[in-house]
Amino acid sequence: MAITVVGLDGDDTLWHNETRFHVTQENLRELLHRHVPDADVHGHLFEVEMRNLGTYGYGVKSFTLSMIETAIELTKGRIPAADLEVILGWGKRMLMEPTELLDGVEDALHELGRYDLLLITKGDLFDQEGKLARSGLADLFMGVEILSEKNTTSYRRVLEHRGIKPEEFVMVGNSLRSDVVPVVELGARAVHIPYEVTWHHEHVPEESLPKGGWHRLEKISELSGLLTKL
Amino acid sequence: MAITVVGLDGDDTLWHNETRFHVTQENLRELLHRHVPDADVHGHLFEVEMRNLGTYGYGVKSFTLSMIETAIELTKGRIPAADLEVILGWGKRMLMEPTELLDGVEDALHELGRYDLLLITKGDLFDQEGKLARSGLADLFMGVEILSEKNTTSYRRVLEHRGIKPEEFVMVGNSLRSDVVPVVELGARAVHIPYEVTWHHEHVPEESLPKGGWHRLEKISELSGLLTKL
Repeated sequence: MAITVVGLDGDDTLWHNETRFHVTQENLRELLHRHVPDADVHGHLFEVEMRNLGTYGYGVKSFTLSMIETAIELTKGRIPAADLEVILGWGKRMLMEPTELLDGVEDALHELGRYDLLLITKGDLFDQEGKLARSGLADLFMGVEILSEKNTTSYRRVLEHRGIKPEEFVMVGNSLRSDVVPVVELGARAVHIPYEVTWHHEHVPEESLPKGGWHRLEKISELSGLLTKL
Repeated sequence: MAITVVGLDGDDTLWHNETRFHVTQENLRELLHRHVPDADVHGHLFEVEMRNLGTYGYGVKSFTLSMIETAIELTKGRIPAADLEVILGWGKRMLMEPTELLDGVEDALHELGRYDLLLITKGDLFDQEGKLARSGLADLFMGVEILSEKNTTSYRRVLEHRGIKPEEFVMVGNSLRSDVVPVVELGARAVHIPYEVTWHHEHVPEESLPKGGWHRLEKISELSGLLTKL
């Protein structure tokens, strides 16, 4: 069956995201090393984030709260409030940053005019809506779905709700875990376009990848050509 | 035209919400008065929340971040990190609390079996989904819409997207600002069921209320009877 609907991930597929987190994490490491020079800041932050995932979910606000928790724990409560205020400021800066599109995104989306486009992102509702609004891309999508988690159940709900058959749907994104594996599992197709950096939480071991039903591209500019052949 | 779809707000319409915030605000006031006995904690927190609304949006995570900011500002950075850790803990507690239904909600919803029910709430996606899941009510709804802001535009988008005509739709909720005014403006009907406490931000001056198109009930148990007469 021919593809009629193309789902596109936002973060690190259409616009830069993970690099913002990396920059802030580096700042946090520097700040905390002034108090505890030997601390494993990245490792501890990741632990705190994973511990909080079920309570906070994804997104910049969750990340900011986890940075504050990490800072207090690693310094055993000795960090001055002024430093925590700096961390609060980083979170706000991340939330207000302009949406920086990846290379070739606008042209690639315009080439997909023959399909219905659906933005399917994960994370904080308010932040994702803001990023889309600032991206200038909103008018290209027939719909937007912001999910708290991307798994087979949530994808199935989106497709059913919109009356889309899995066979006519392809999902495009940078995360094997969120954009490829659950989509292939429900019988739809997927295109993986890796981003320069992947959050550790999104890693998938090679051996647990689906055998077929998905493709890998280097750049989004190759997408239109690939879809013609599907 | 007869009503076929009933939209229901969640927070303070189906389950208690504002009281959780009030309890935590009282705790914050006590905590900060140990450092700055004369500070207007409630007033300053509200100011910070309003200043951050455009960056953070609604919800417990936003509230937690604003409490931390308030604590640092009011104590001029003198608050120890251990106290901020306590505030972080309050936020997590709020996020994990069981969903406490208002009196009569379950019976009232079961009486509405002849309508399609749509949960339309505002706030943090992850938190709202969690509250719904813990409420035990999820199966009663034909759909769930979690909006970052409830205004005429966002209501219109929901109705259009679901193919619902304004004339066949009624919205039920505790907030004049979020559940009544924008809904009446787009030609649908609304039912206001006040909650015991209203967040200052949701207040609407009496003179700016729509003249008609909406009703006020004391309890959700009266809803089914009212809808029969609409």
